[in-house]
Amino acid sequence: MSRKYAIGIDYGTQSGRAVLVDLADGAEVADHVTPYPHGVIDEELPEGGVKLGREWALQHPGDYLEVLRRSVPAVLRQSGVRPEDVIGIGVDFTACTILPVNREGVPLCFLSEWKNNPHSWVKLWKHHAAQDEANRLNAIAAERGERFLPRYGGKISSEWMVPKVWQIVNEAPEVYDAADRFVEAADWIVFRLTGNLVRSCCPAGYKSIWHKREGYPSREFFRALDPRLEFFAETKLRGEVLPLGAKAGGLTPEMAEQTGLLPGTAVAVGIVDAHAAVPGVGAVKPGQLVMVMGTSTCHMMISTEEKWIEGISGVVEDGIIPGYYGYEAGQAAVGDIFEWFVEQAVPACVRDEAAREGAGVHAWLEKRAAACKPGQTGLLALDWWNGNRSTLVDADLSGLIVGCTLLTKPEEIYRTLLEATAYGTRKIIEAFESGGLKVDELYACGGLPQKNRLLMQIYADVTGREIKIAASKQTSAVGAAMFGAVAAGRAAGGYDSVVEAAANMARTKEETFRPIPENAAVYDKLYREYSILHDYFGRGANDVMKRLKAIRDSI
Amino acid sequence: MSRKYAIGIDYGTQSGRAVLVDLADGAEVADHVTPYPHGVIDEELPEGGVKLGREWALQHPGDYLEVLRRSVPAVLRQSGVRPEDVIGIGVDFTACTILPVNREGVPLCFLSEWKNNPHSWVKLWKHHAAQDEANRLNAIAAERGERFLPRYGGKISSEWMVPKVWQIVNEAPEVYDAADRFVEAADWIVFRLTGNLVRSCCPAGYKSIWHKREGYPSREFFRALDPRLEFFAETKLRGEVLPLGAKAGGLTPEMAEQTGLLPGTAVAVGIVDAHAAVPGVGAVKPGQLVMVMGTSTCHMMISTEEKWIEGISGVVEDGIIPGYYGYEAGQAAVGDIFEWFVEQAVPACVRDEAAREGAGVHAWLEKRAAACKPGQTGLLALDWWNGNRSTLVDADLSGLIVGCTLLTKPEEIYRTLLEATAYGTRKIIEAFESGGLKVDELYACGGLPQKNRLLMQIYADVTGREIKIAASKQTSAVGAAMFGAVAAGRAAGGYDSVVEAAANMARTKEETFRPIPENAAVYDKLYREYSILHDYFGRGANDVMKRLKAIRDSI
Repeated sequence: MSRKYAIGIDYGTQSGRAVLVDLADGAEVADHVTPYPHGVIDEELPEGGVKLGREWALQHPGDYLEVLRRSVPAVLRQSGVRPEDVIGIGVDFTACTILPVNREGVPLCFLSEWKNNPHSWVKLWKHHAAQDEANRLNAIAAERGERFLPRYGGKISSEWMVPKVWQIVNEAPEVYDAADRFVEAADWIVFRLTGNLVRSCCPAGYKSIWHKREGYPSREFFRALDPRLEFFAETKLRGEVLPLGAKAGGLTPEMAEQTGLLPGTAVAVGIVDAHAAVPGVGAVKPGQLVMVMGTSTCHMMISTEEKWIEGISGVVEDGIIPGYYGYEAGQAAVGDIFEWFVEQAVPACVRDEAAREGAGVHAWLEKRAAACKPGQTGLLALDWWNGNRSTLVDADLSGLIVGCTLLTKPEEIYRTLLEATAYGTRKIIEAFESGGLKVDELYACGGLPQKNRLLMQIYADVTGREIKIAASKQTSAVGAAMFGAVAAGRAAGGYDSVVEAAANMARTKEETFRPIPENAAVYDKLYREYSILHDYFGRGANDVMKRLKAIRDSI
Repeated sequence: MSRKYAIGIDYGTQSGRAVLVDLADGAEVADHVTPYPHGVIDEELPEGGVKLGREWALQHPGDYLEVLRRSVPAVLRQSGVRPEDVIGIGVDFTACTILPVNREGVPLCFLSEWKNNPHSWVKLWKHHAAQDEANRLNAIAAERGERFLPRYGGKISSEWMVPKVWQIVNEAPEVYDAADRFVEAADWIVFRLTGNLVRSCCPAGYKSIWHKREGYPSREFFRALDPRLEFFAETKLRGEVLPLGAKAGGLTPEMAEQTGLLPGTAVAVGIVDAHAAVPGVGAVKPGQLVMVMGTSTCHMMISTEEKWIEGISGVVEDGIIPGYYGYEAGQAAVGDIFEWFVEQAVPACVRDEAAREGAGVHAWLEKRAAACKPGQTGLLALDWWNGNRSTLVDADLSGLIVGCTLLTKPEEIYRTLLEATAYGTRKIIEAFESGGLKVDELYACGGLPQKNRLLMQIYADVTGREIKIAASKQTSAVGAAMFGAVAAGRAAGGYDSVVEAAANMARTKEETFRPIPENAAVYDKLYREYSILHDYFGRGANDVMKRLKAIRDSI
């Protein structure tokens, strides 16, 4: 029998990527990226020029289809693999990224009567304009003692399905009424590939408050939020929820023609991008924490036990690896902070000097920052440039830096920002351990770990743990391909379980990052300082960050 | 009788300036700047390459003489004024800027046996390496209940004479022993002009803990500090202390030849640069607060009463205007913070855009920042990049910024830094008023007010007070010239008192800055937030700033 392959399609924030993976050993035979033509829409709608509010972030669903039309044929072409040897397709997607669709599954923003209403568009995961709704939801859920709340660390994020939809109810009830359903973009793409609008248990569990045995929150809860939402779950969220690894359907003839694959090729139910990285990097045992590090960081771990962990994003049965409880936590901005720094705060002299040395600005900063010893900058930051996801679950928090002097250098601030995100990760690890889940090993994947060795050393030093780095640069896509292989099944040349797929296909680099004891000792001291500031600004002693945002918003 | 003139010589941090002033109306007929060839020496000694420690700041006394040789002849030449019509010379100088001299008044650093010892050089006002000594001095003085302490807001600064000399005793006792005296640079220049080594009551009172009736601290106090200092005041600080406006002597023939002036020309005793600005801008009545705004800001006010004001730099009888108590407070960094920001944190894109618009970076930032409304940045800073002088008197505090998001723009940070310094000034005004001294009017002079209209409007809005701006760009030099005219006396064509001189010679601009009520209302809210952070970080609730510096210094 010839070698068999699967394609993982990974939808990120700025672009989509297809990776064609060899099922025998996980080798990435070909990959191709399609940048979204419209990128992140955060100022005004395409064409009409309708202005968006602060904290909005939309996308164009047509951009997602463009990825299918361009990147899938490209990997077939590049690899020379025959379509009949591609036995499965898996899709991973940012989440919670949602859109309203009509009865035929057409996005409302594709329809001329709705396209000038911003609420008809895809709301990207980082759309943060539903914080008021999230705050009210959390207050009502707490008051009612809703059983789902502890599964989500005590708070539902403004990024998730219900607050986002509630914002639509409040600001554009006509869009809410016109929507036949609200769907995760992951499920919508799988629908476009197969013609079946099924829902994946992964985004449903992590982002739509769905539970394997309890389903969605009750009608009474939704009515308590807003009478107009009373029947929300049973109408606009209706649809079968399938476990990960299940086959959503076969590729439609139309999509087969567009992609160059065979009609009927098995398509797995979608998965959240970060979650796909867990099998992708092979961390399929309890105690192995995966950090998917990019613009933001997701922390994923599986366990045989269901525990209540402070401020995690969620725990979902079968939500990452079938048969295990899957835990997700996260930091709302990591690479985004470094990027902000480079764009908005690195002086011209650094750009000039980096150019003279023939280096990029990031590389120059990393080199200079690496020459500082821990503690030597005299600086400390709170990494809340995009709020705090875990463990405080508060989007209204903001970034802070302390210790500035007239001698403070850009590379010192850069290093301080790297360190701050490491402290944020340590807070999450400590929350897992206080909740009773031991964290033995760290795995890092995503865009940052392979680019920034200093960052990885700081994480090892700050957390006091060895870190293994994914060999692949597109771990989520590889993980998605594994699910495609499981959807196809062993008989077709795939696998019976994702654990089995990961055992054969996942790889980490030989070199790992180990804590350096003298660095770790200094970071223990600095982490104590971080913790004091974290609690002072994050737990109500001084809500100045919220008041500054309130003043800003009142101007 | 022909028009008469005086020359004010103003010694700043980076350069010295001579201004030739018409005594009839204060018109500045000519001015000339000589940059110090060695600038601020903060990395290594000239020639020998001896490395300096962190927080050191030295200068080369030869640079000061260069100003006399170049700038005085230049203003004579430019103006065409005859030497016989220049009746007086006044000198103002940064302080506390001190140097050890031998029996002949020669700086030790001019002598080959001492020039490789950093302690033999001029210690500039912003030399901050004597903080340990200052801390110990303050603890001992408090314990002993020293009467001088309340005159200095409860704390002696590490910038002043005694901590600086004590550092020499600790680190280079051989330099201490070799020094015949320690002198203020102001007094040393007057000595070079006249041959008389007299001391001015102004730096003596503000920087050397001298009091008109009580003299220097007691021998017992000095012994309690360090037995080696027991006789410090009566030996190394010996010399007559003269009041402001007094004549130190006449110009020596040698200096007459070097400067082009007549031998015997009256030279006034020196004055601290900020203090000279008070008559320079004409604020010679109680309730008129002068802000001398440059790299740092000094706040000066006179009163008929002696009050104890929290955290002021000092109150000295006759220390600014003879016959009044002169109060000094200050912010350790103001323009320096903006300069740091422009050098170290303004991104390349701003430089490019400013260049495209044909603007300087500062001007571009000011324009953009002026387009933000108060409160709109969502940011707040503590303006402690160089510690806090008044009212906390703590050089170990550091800068902080809170409210950063991924959308934070450079012009917003810039505006926030301007605002932070305005809050710092409001703290000082409130300290004066809590101590019983009403602050009715603000006068601004120095390098910043004429360059940055936004800054002045923010100060008016934050303090809720009208601000008058000096018409002159070199108010201190004009004030120094007034003292020169008083040293010459009315008979010679000068004046009998500096109040009389100021009444004729000082000028402010017609345009003033008045608070805009809606801005002031927002700033009242933001100032409350500033105050909470100010007290939390500045008054011991969280000494993280000190601990970060301690960790840094231990690396």
